[in-house]
Amino acid sequence: MSRWTNIIEDLLSRVTDIGNTILVNSNTDSETLSLSEKCKALLSNVGEATGLARSRDILEDYKNLDKAEQLAFFQQIYADCGVNEDLLRKSVSEWLKHPSKVEARYIHSISEPRSQELIRRLNLAYGGTAALVKMREDLLQHTKTDPSLVALDKDFQHLFTSWFNNGFLRLERISWSTPASILEKIIAYEAVHEIQGWDELRLRVAAHDRRLYAFFHPSLSDEPLIFVEVALTDDMPDNISSILSGDRETLDPHLASTAVFYSISNCQTGLRGISFGNFLIKQVVEELKRELPNLKRFVTMSPVPGLRRWIDSKPALEPTMQKLVDELTPLHNKPDKVFIEENQRLLYKLAAHYLLEAKHKNGGPFDPVSKFHLGNGARLEQINLWADESKRGFAGSWGIMVNYEYDLNSIEINHEHFLREGTISTSPTVKRLYTNS
Amino acid sequence: MSRWTNIIEDLLSRVTDIGNTILVNSNTDSETLSLSEKCKALLSNVGEATGLARSRDILEDYKNLDKAEQLAFFQQIYADCGVNEDLLRKSVSEWLKHPSKVEARYIHSISEPRSQELIRRLNLAYGGTAALVKMREDLLQHTKTDPSLVALDKDFQHLFTSWFNNGFLRLERISWSTPASILEKIIAYEAVHEIQGWDELRLRVAAHDRRLYAFFHPSLSDEPLIFVEVALTDDMPDNISSILSGDRETLDPHLASTAVFYSISNCQTGLRGISFGNFLIKQVVEELKRELPNLKRFVTMSPVPGLRRWIDSKPALEPTMQKLVDELTPLHNKPDKVFIEENQRLLYKLAAHYLLEAKHKNGGPFDPVSKFHLGNGARLEQINLWADESKRGFAGSWGIMVNYEYDLNSIEINHEHFLREGTISTSPTVKRLYTNS
Amino acid sequence: MSRWTNIIEDLLSRVTDIGNTILVNSNTDSETLSLSEKCKALLSNVGEATGLARSRDILEDYKNLDKAEQLAFFQQIYADCGVNEDLLRKSVSEWLKHPSKVEARYIHSISEPRSQELIRRLNLAYGGTAALVKMREDLLQHTKTDPSLVALDKDFQHLFTSWFNNGFLRLERISWSTPASILEKIIAYEAVHEIQGWDELRLRVAAHDRRLYAFFHPSLSDEPLIFVEVALTDDMPDNISSILSGDRETLDPHLASTAVFYSISNCQTGLRGISFGNFLIKQVVEELKRELPNLKRFVTMSPVPGLRRWIDSKPALEPTMQKLVDELTPLHNKPDKVFIEENQRLLYKLAAHYLLEAKHKNGGPFDPVSKFHLGNGARLEQINLWADESKRGFAGSWGIMVNYEYDLNSIEINHEHFLREGTISTSPTVKRLYTNS
Amino acid sequence: MSRWTNIIEDLLSRVTDIGNTILVNSNTDSETLSLSEKCKALLSNVGEATGLARSRDILEDYKNLDKAEQLAFFQQIYADCGVNEDLLRKSVSEWLKHPSKVEARYIHSISEPRSQELIRRLNLAYGGTAALVKMREDLLQHTKTDPSLVALDKDFQHLFTSWFNNGFLRLERISWSTPASILEKIIAYEAVHEIQGWDELRLRVAAHDRRLYAFFHPSLSDEPLIFVEVALTDDMPDNISSILSGDRETLDPHLASTAVFYSISNCQTGLRGISFGNFLIKQVVEELKRELPNLKRFVTMSPVPGLRRWIDSKPALEPTMQKLVDELTPLHNKPDKVFIEENQRLLYKLAAHYLLEAKHKNGGPFDPVSKFHLGNGARLEQINLWADESKRGFAGSWGIMVNYEYDLNSIEINHEHFLREGTISTSPTVKRLYTNS
Repeated sequence: MSRWTNIIEDLLSRVTDIGNTILVNSNTDSETLSLSEKCKALLSNVGEATGLARSRDILEDYKNLDKAEQLAFFQQIYADCGVNEDLLRKSVSEWLKHPSKVEARYIHSISEPRSQELIRRLNLAYGGTAALVKMREDLLQHTKTDPSLVALDKDFQHLFTSWFNNGFLRLERISWSTPASILEKIIAYEAVHEIQGWDELRLRVAAHDRRLYAFFHPSLSDEPLIFVEVALTDDMPDNISSILSGDRETLDPHLASTAVFYSISNCQTGLRGISFGNFLIKQVVEELKRELPNLKRFVTMSPVPGLRRWIDSKPALEPTMQKLVDELTPLHNKPDKVFIEENQRLLYKLAAHYLLEAKHKNGGPFDPVSKFHLGNGARLEQINLWADESKRGFAGSWGIMVNYEYDLNSIEINHEHFLREGTISTSPTVKRLYTNS
Repeated sequence: MSRWTNIIEDLLSRVTDIGNTILVNSNTDSETLSLSEKCKALLSNVGEATGLARSRDILEDYKNLDKAEQLAFFQQIYADCGVNEDLLRKSVSEWLKHPSKVEARYIHSISEPRSQELIRRLNLAYGGTAALVKMREDLLQHTKTDPSLVALDKDFQHLFTSWFNNGFLRLERISWSTPASILEKIIAYEAVHEIQGWDELRLRVAAHDRRLYAFFHPSLSDEPLIFVEVALTDDMPDNISSILSGDRETLDPHLASTAVFYSISNCQTGLRGISFGNFLIKQVVEELKRELPNLKRFVTMSPVPGLRRWIDSKPALEPTMQKLVDELTPLHNKPDKVFIEENQRLLYKLAAHYLLEAKHKNGGPFDPVSKFHLGNGARLEQINLWADESKRGFAGSWGIMVNYEYDLNSIEINHEHFLREGTISTSPTVKRLYTNS
Repeated sequence: MSRWTNIIEDLLSRVTDIGNTILVNSNTDSETLSLSEKCKALLSNVGEATGLARSRDILEDYKNLDKAEQLAFFQQIYADCGVNEDLLRKSVSEWLKHPSKVEARYIHSISEPRSQELIRRLNLAYGGTAALVKMREDLLQHTKTDPSLVALDKDFQHLFTSWFNNGFLRLERISWSTPASILEKIIAYEAVHEIQGWDELRLRVAAHDRRLYAFFHPSLSDEPLIFVEVALTDDMPDNISSILSGDRETLDPHLASTAVFYSISNCQTGLRGISFGNFLIKQVVEELKRELPNLKRFVTMSPVPGLRRWIDSKPALEPTMQKLVDELTPLHNKPDKVFIEENQRLLYKLAAHYLLEAKHKNGGPFDPVSKFHLGNGARLEQINLWADESKRGFAGSWGIMVNYEYDLNSIEINHEHFLREGTISTSPTVKRLYTNS
Repeated sequence: MSRWTNIIEDLLSRVTDIGNTILVNSNTDSETLSLSEKCKALLSNVGEATGLARSRDILEDYKNLDKAEQLAFFQQIYADCGVNEDLLRKSVSEWLKHPSKVEARYIHSISEPRSQELIRRLNLAYGGTAALVKMREDLLQHTKTDPSLVALDKDFQHLFTSWFNNGFLRLERISWSTPASILEKIIAYEAVHEIQGWDELRLRVAAHDRRLYAFFHPSLSDEPLIFVEVALTDDMPDNISSILSGDRETLDPHLASTAVFYSISNCQTGLRGISFGNFLIKQVVEELKRELPNLKRFVTMSPVPGLRRWIDSKPALEPTMQKLVDELTPLHNKPDKVFIEENQRLLYKLAAHYLLEAKHKNGGPFDPVSKFHLGNGARLEQINLWADESKRGFAGSWGIMVNYEYDLNSIEINHEHFLREGTISTSPTVKRLYTNS
């Protein structure tokens, strides 16, 4: 009988709590409602009965808005669907008089902006999640015009953080048996080392010693969220072209000792700020270890995108380095290999100095890629000159690349020291390059 | 280049906002940590690097707790993972001085109890969602011992409302081709008209004129959340045994005019308060209309579980009805069909009076089933005497059952009037029974 | 250009060879054709253009035949669709004059009965394969009435041998996640140790130390062809009830040393004579070895169904055994365990004598189960008294059962010696029981 | 009890019939056996016990043969695995003495070449079917060197005809969601209108008004057997470039009146002579009618590959046509559109004459494509000048193409008249072009 009772209780609890909802005069003739009126109707308890139809209707209308109409729409939602400040004022004054854990929690509940419930209800429609991710992509652009919309964006971010909780993601290997409709997105989304068409893609997903893994969400089944590309090698590489080359010899993956993460790309602008990369790398490490127990090392082949930007922004370097920089600067789009070889000691030192010392104004490493991997608990393992001969590689760092190593035994301790004291876990080799004079 | 920039920005934003997190001295020897210390470690930024392993570990430990240890665990979490009241105090005082929409929203953000982040991180583990639903089932029991835990339960409820948003659910038809592991759960969870073993189940899922639909969540793939049973008939039924009977003639579904929802059961105690029923019924109506365009009516065959409870709790009825009730009461476990037929006019009136007038102390209908369907926008269509001859049927309502009708053209307007004015949409027949004297 | 040429050649070859086909006056009004006329129309080249519709029509009509009509139908097909004897006569006389390999092969081609092409064309319809398997099941019954139909049955057998080639079968593990529609067939088809309902089935498919594997064919996707039940144990069992019992302790499969095949059942009467068992056992052995490398032994727990039948049919046994048999016979439905224990030496000897010496009139072992396993290359490993207490067990062999062992190293050599010289591979234990006096 | 009996009978029947098998001295040391000895071992009853391992071994060995070794292998198989001529002689003499239907059928059984059983056993290995299709592709080449191997090829063809019976094929729509590994095969196999890379493929499979359907076999799951490309249009087209063009407007398929089969390609050389095209077209017609009930016409856009070849091989044409031909011939790789327009009456007449009158030496139409569609029951509907501007189009037929129409009401009758009397179903338009003078 207890289940029966539970059901009854559930039913009882359903319509009770109407204090915080909007009761609108639902005009069933949806032709005459504006888009934001439709949103209010959806948000009302009245709208609940027909939420599915309403949310479809709204998302359909939204698609037809031009940029100016989008902006007006977001502003209207922001204005209409805020916090119920009267209720908030009451509970705040209660808490100030009688502070308690439970009252503090109640403030959190009562202060939920109505826009959050709106977003949850818009998700009812078939394809709603994809439409909302797209909507946030638009909203992010409009925050540049109207910064107050950043507050509205927080609702999207908050809900997406829940909805796209890493526990809901599905790791999938992308291979040559993957549908073309997904593969063409991989081509489009690759952000680090561009994929020039299907033949290059094939090199990266069909070769026995190459892997590509992506996260998917059940409600966005045709859209990768993030993906990472892996090369299986017999040694830690010191340049990217040996990895991307089409005419290398293929290695039997069961003989590989090293997995190299050589590219990681976020796919959905509308999911900015929801972080998948850390978890993706760790899931892929687990997956690879299960499949290929012979793998001993997990390293990256990473760009150093902030090096030259940091130098440009810096008033002074030590004289020998400044001289080097002055000589390098005019060459940046076509550096001279001989020059680099002749100055390699100094260049190594410059790069090591940057990676170990250059700080962002908020305190962490200046280099965003470095910050990402060090924040995940990786170690700064090796610096490589003349490692990326692409235009972007020279523009960012005169072709310098870095290997970070994910050493499973020290990830947690690295991560902890990095967070607490800003300590950067560094290999002896890199330390030597740095102290070398 | 813009995608590249976005990624960098994303990376940059990752480790910045550490004001609200807990920095603990992570003792990597997890053997020596208590369960709640492990939770704090998981919750710390430090724990993020190894969140997957940590959350597995915690959920595994949790499984081995006995009831007393569970209670202590929940109390510890409640004590440790509340709102950061210092930050809250600051932002509240700011808002009181300079009230603004954006500050109000900020209060919401800043007041999030740390227990919400804990639950989100516990979800990382494989099978985490199922474990958390089970954990809440335990928690709900402990709220009876320690009502302050209701506040902790709100966190589960809040996150589950997001995670189990109807837009993420998958409607599936349960049939004789469904895995036995799921079918046995249907047998176990059926709460309204018990299923006695596999042969009875077969009658309900394998007959051409019977359907069973359930909602599933991608992260709980073997567990139905709620299901509804449907009979396809050529007329609105006036009793339940004609639907449940094994030796009726099967109707070609393409000839059916009426879909009868004759049972709806919630399956997961740990999801109490997250409502699926309204949306399930409406999705099933859409599905059935698509498959069987000939269907004209969508009605229920529903119990009236509160009728006798209401009468028992009521001091006075009008004399003729009170006389009827007095005569019925002693018979309840074995009423006399002849007596019921002789008094049918009065019984109809009594039932109609109950359904139209009996109110809960909070204002809605006294009958929970009635409240559910009326709240969904259905109409009170027909009252049926001697409709449920089961023990439960007599105990609840002397065998009386009700048909509610989901008339797609009037659902929204019914729902609105019910919510605004408490108006109960009623068929002329039932009105006549009520006014009949 | 070569593929293009090939296509043209293919096209060219299509309509050429019409010598062996039937040209009928296709009456498009299919209402007026008899079933066997429809078959001739399908068989004609004319029918090819509409083969799909025709074959559906014929299979639909066939379903409605009663037994007498079926018999008439098969007799008509046999009469109409035989070998083209004129063509055969010509090619035979050619071959007799000028014998050659190629002419001999041509005789084979030219002598194909038209009924084979008929069966191939009937297979075009959706569900055709299942319908044809059912049709042969009927035909097999009619061969008892009209033995000439055995020749027609050879066509079915020949084609089914090709179509159900073991290479086309799919080995699937049947578990508690298997659709109920297939599980109920397992219950129905189990032929050796009956499954009494779903709870007993669950013991056999859901326990960690029990397995059930079946072969499926892509065109009969809901119908198992044959299945085998396996117990994972830590020792070779000496009775069946320890395997079937519901209240035993479950063994961790990774700790099991022995896989016991304790039941094997053919499912499709219409596939009689197409042998799957040998291949099934060997595929399951491969599958189990892959999953559980710790498994060391693969044995059976098999009945001895011919023992008492053989004794009854035999004029004389050696006196001590005859005395034993005379005492056992009246007890057969309720033997006395004490008696059996007292006479175990003699009983072992009797059983060993039967298994090693009793021959069928065609030369192989008298016992069909023994013949099956020995023919597959297994060894006669152990004889067990009081091993099957079921009614069938006593009726067949006074409860005696046998373990055959599939020892991968000796399967081929056992098989060869069995086929060449009739040698039965026998364990030392069984040899001792036999020579023991 | 009857199922039990059946099993026993099945078991009994297994090892009986050994007259026709080869008993070899199985040397278990497979290292020392030649490939054809391994085949004999597999073919022997002895080999049956280890057929799976044997067949894997043989197919693996076969892969490593060079062309000369292949030829020797096939010749050895042909020599070793023929008909058992002694048994054949006995049964033939029996039949000649006492002719009967049943003896004639027995001759068929007894004369089966042992090579057929060999092929059936080779199919046991995982991937066996694919390997055998490839093996036959090789064999077909060797038949040019050694025509006696044609007789061996008949065994492959006979078994493949059974195995690839249309009833076992799965029709699948190829779309942009199909795995890239299959899509690249479509690009490679397209034999009529070449696909230049992924962008062109996309035009043919991803546009709403284009379809591509293929047949697959369950044992060759990654290999299409044949595919057809369809354009959905609002009118019967009169040239191919309007169909292939990338910058046309897409038509809503629900508004299309006409389905145009504009390309059909066989994929597997090893399946030559097993015809799929007729059945494919008819299945696709059924599928399209189900999905798009508005479709009224099913037509082809077909090349006329034999036109110029026929003219070249023909001693004399009627003078006006001969004059036309003489003028056209030198232009063939770059014909003059003006010239064609000026001579269109004569060109139409020439094409119509060819299609209606030109015969192959075996009696059917000279044009292979015409023969294919007419043989399927289609009607010669329309002749189009300047319809295919490709090099192949001019080389084959000066750019002329033809529409054949599949009119479901007349397919059977067309097919019948075509087969019986050679009558070509012709539209009034084409008739007029022909008689026009």
